[in-house]
Amino acid sequence: MVVLALDAMGGDFAPEEVVLGAAVAAGPSLKVQLVGRRAGIEEALAGAKGSGRDFIEVIDAPDVIGFDEEPVKAVRLKGGSSLVTACRLVAEGRASGAVSAGNTGAMLAAALIHLGRMKGLKRPGLCTVLPTPGKPTVFIDVGANSEVRPLHLLEFANMASIFAENVLERANPSIGLVSIGEESVKGNELVLEAHRLMASQPQLNFYGNVEGRDIIRNVVDVVVTDGFTGNVCLKLMESTSSLIVEEVKKAATGSVPARIGGALLKRRLSNFKKSIDAKEIGGAYLLGVRGLVVVCHGNSGRRAIASALGYAARAVQQDLVGSLGERVASL
Amino acid sequence: MVVLALDAMGGDFAPEEVVLGAAVAAGPSLKVQLVGRRAGIEEALAGAKGSGRDFIEVIDAPDVIGFDEEPVKAVRLKGGSSLVTACRLVAEGRASGAVSAGNTGAMLAAALIHLGRMKGLKRPGLCTVLPTPGKPTVFIDVGANSEVRPLHLLEFANMASIFAENVLERANPSIGLVSIGEESVKGNELVLEAHRLMASQPQLNFYGNVEGRDIIRNVVDVVVTDGFTGNVCLKLMESTSSLIVEEVKKAATGSVPARIGGALLKRRLSNFKKSIDAKEIGGAYLLGVRGLVVVCHGNSGRRAIASALGYAARAVQQDLVGSLGERVASL
Repeated sequence: MVVLALDAMGGDFAPEEVVLGAAVAAGPSLKVQLVGRRAGIEEALAGAKGSGRDFIEVIDAPDVIGFDEEPVKAVRLKGGSSLVTACRLVAEGRASGAVSAGNTGAMLAAALIHLGRMKGLKRPGLCTVLPTPGKPTVFIDVGANSEVRPLHLLEFANMASIFAENVLERANPSIGLVSIGEESVKGNELVLEAHRLMASQPQLNFYGNVEGRDIIRNVVDVVVTDGFTGNVCLKLMESTSSLIVEEVKKAATGSVPARIGGALLKRRLSNFKKSIDAKEIGGAYLLGVRGLVVVCHGNSGRRAIASALGYAARAVQQDLVGSLGERVASL
Repeated sequence: MVVLALDAMGGDFAPEEVVLGAAVAAGPSLKVQLVGRRAGIEEALAGAKGSGRDFIEVIDAPDVIGFDEEPVKAVRLKGGSSLVTACRLVAEGRASGAVSAGNTGAMLAAALIHLGRMKGLKRPGLCTVLPTPGKPTVFIDVGANSEVRPLHLLEFANMASIFAENVLERANPSIGLVSIGEESVKGNELVLEAHRLMASQPQLNFYGNVEGRDIIRNVVDVVVTDGFTGNVCLKLMESTSSLIVEEVKKAATGSVPARIGGALLKRRLSNFKKSIDAKEIGGAYLLGVRGLVVVCHGNSGRRAIASALGYAARAVQQDLVGSLGERVASL
């Protein structure tokens, strides 16, 4: 049985939606530790249906770290917060992974402080799965490192390659490096040197540079970039797709024929919206720390939380952290 | 009468579509110099309708610079190419601006070599108008500088502010700096220092940082970033929107009700697609060189070319280059 610690107080809809998500995901093969203020958690649990509740443990943590708090300071000052406690449960071996929809920076800081980096690794990277049509794409780094050196990009590539193999069951995943032209001579100094480094690694299936347009076009299995570019791209993609879906909806509420047309298309469009909705996939993984750490979108509802727990449980079963450790040690 | 030099050989559909676009745009207030291989241009002109032909001059240029050629080398070796000749016509005062849908890098190199930077400016920047719903957004730099310093971002902000005033008639345009968080302490070293610089300039209506999601949300009039991030974002946006429009089309060709629904929605969706299509707007402007230089998308058809010529003519009438020069000189 996999045991995951879930920050019940993290996210825009915590604790209710987080708790209900846990109740959906928990079961004979997954025990969920709900970490947070006991009273609020139990109140939310009272509204949960199904048998999931039997596989939930409540772990009291009085403090909460808000979205606005300065991460490192908050983690140092609020050792008893739900988010820090979740990471500690992993550090103490009581849980196999920690999941939070709270303050991302604080979760990264808590993971670095309480779990630590893998031996031999310079920089953990935040990796997510883009719901690209056809098949999902692994994208790293989406915001853990706003300033990187070429070696860090190489580390991201190696870790995300293992992630794609283990979690998405992608054999020999191809790796693309984000640049402003396909040719190896295109890009800034960081990318030129990272390209050279990646091309020299026999264990990597390095495709070469990919451009902005290729990120969502299934050109490669894994897309690697620095945390500044990755974060900007991720938020831009989310915003572009929701804007367009809104506009399509508007188009379908105009004239009477358009409204009829929209009604006839509704189900298909909503399926499509789900297929491109990052919330359906299950959070971002901080690769390179000594434990499984998953950060969910702040606006996660119960379904997103349940999905993240499901993916995280699979990552534990596949021993993602162990495989990452081996690859990192071999670099 | 405004005179513009158009590279008739640049673009995926040159010379035909370029020539036909010129024939649409040319008229009593705009003379177009079609620069390229005379025979091909005249053949394409024979197919043009309307009275635009009377306002077109053909200027023979035997060489063509291809998309794959190394920009600086190509510009040096092919002084008689259509693209270089168009820039030279501006340098010689025979045209007020040069427009090309050819090799962007070569156009930038030709502009730098034959027109030169504005006095006092460190780095010209490539600026485009994003067709964001509501009102368009100015976005700079979309690829002229893959490596920049904070001062360069400040220059981009000042130039794009003038551009928004002159070409989009936006009063006191607000300026956003792309970062990975709204707070002034979020970002990499480049952005932190650029933020400080921009905030210290009384002539700029500096809003502060904007995130990836804000780029297309009309949060500010002008979005400033380095040419690496800008180029990746621009291509990602184009690709995300065309992918989604494709998927909506697919949804509308499934079951019989979906097909009927799609047919009823068709016109509205195609209007919407046009509204988010960068090709409708009219190219990217290289701000900071001593002359008006516009680069169009390689896949520009006649409508995109005509639109770019229209915008460029307006920029000439508004004396965009003169206003930019004044602002740059005052920095």
